[in-house]
Amino acid sequence: MQEITELWSNLSQTTKSSRMVKAVLSAVLVLAIISSTIAKYIPKTGKRIPQTLSRGWGDQLIWAQTYEEALYWSRSRNKPLMVIFHLEDCPHSQALKKVFSENNEIQKTLDEDFIVLNLMYETTDKHLSPDGQYVPRILFVDPSMTVRADINGRYSNRMYAYETGDISLLISNMQTAKKLLKAEL
Amino acid sequence: MQEITELWSNLSQTTKSSRMVKAVLSAVLVLAIISSTIAKYIPKTGKRIPQTLSRGWGDQLIWAQTYEEALYWSRSRNKPLMVIFHLEDCPHSQALKKVFSENNEIQKTLDEDFIVLNLMYETTDKHLSPDGQYVPRILFVDPSMTVRADINGRYSNRMYAYETGDISLLISNMQTAKKLLKAEL
Repeated sequence: MQEITELWSNLSQTTKSSRMVKAVLSAVLVLAIISSTIAKYIPKTGKRIPQTLSRGWGDQLIWAQTYEEALYWSRSRNKPLMVIFHLEDCPHSQALKKVFSENNEIQKTLDEDFIVLNLMYETTDKHLSPDGQYVPRILFVDPSMTVRADINGRYSNRMYAYETGDISLLISNMQTAKKLLKAEL
Repeated sequence: MQEITELWSNLSQTTKSSRMVKAVLSAVLVLAIISSTIAKYIPKTGKRIPQTLSRGWGDQLIWAQTYEEALYWSRSRNKPLMVIFHLEDCPHSQALKKVFSENNEIQKTLDEDFIVLNLMYETTDKHLSPDGQYVPRILFVDPSMTVRADINGRYSNRMYAYETGDISLLISNMQTAKKLLKAEL
């Protein structure tokens, strides 16, 4: 870059016939600056699609990133929290995610009345695994910071699991979670 | 939908002249099914751009979502972890993010040699705030789960703060963090 600038400076003292050369060099200089500014890092394995916080559970919802953040929003907005535990390589999680993300009633209710968090890694808080760690698993937390262990699905061995056929039960459970433990003053 | 189906069934028993009507109704039925499947939930306030895990700190990097997840990857891949604390409405965070995300050396090194996590909410782990909670703040964690309180910036009152002019110090600190506390066997 410095060499081009010096060359250009030298050329400035020469004859009119060099105008064309200057114009070309000027264009090269501008292009070099633009390309060095724009060229962003691309991994060797190729360009990646940026990860979303929704991970496919509802692109239009505003997701909390961590449990701490979710609890903060739940308390400050006085809204119940839904925590979804799932895994990308679990077919049950994937099947539930599909019907969950395509169900407008669920998506609308979550957007308007809930704080939402989806996690692929367990937290250190054991209250979020009342009967063990498995996926998919959905727990509700009241704004009073109480995990609603009383709101569960239909499987006695995995109390907080839901399958694709359990969407209406899940919606019903969401209505239960909306009835807060301590009413607003 | 049910009414259309009944109507269609009745029409099936009528004359050939009704074929056109049947075809039209059939098309309507198909369109109704397609639109009810495709129509996705859109918030009243309008469609939102899905949030990314990078939050602008490097769209090509693979970000951990939580500190627990980040520690897990750091240990299992034997790579140091960089934790960035920042806020969307903090001009210092935004300015640092711009130079950070546009610096190819930082992005390449992080992608190849680090586990990365960016947080807008504090964790419950006090080791991540050796001299208080402020943003922007960058801490390194060794795969041995040791927070590298010894790797700091140039400000004595905010030891883990970096400004836009401190990028070369940050790169140098990344090199220090790459020298693991306990060498691989």
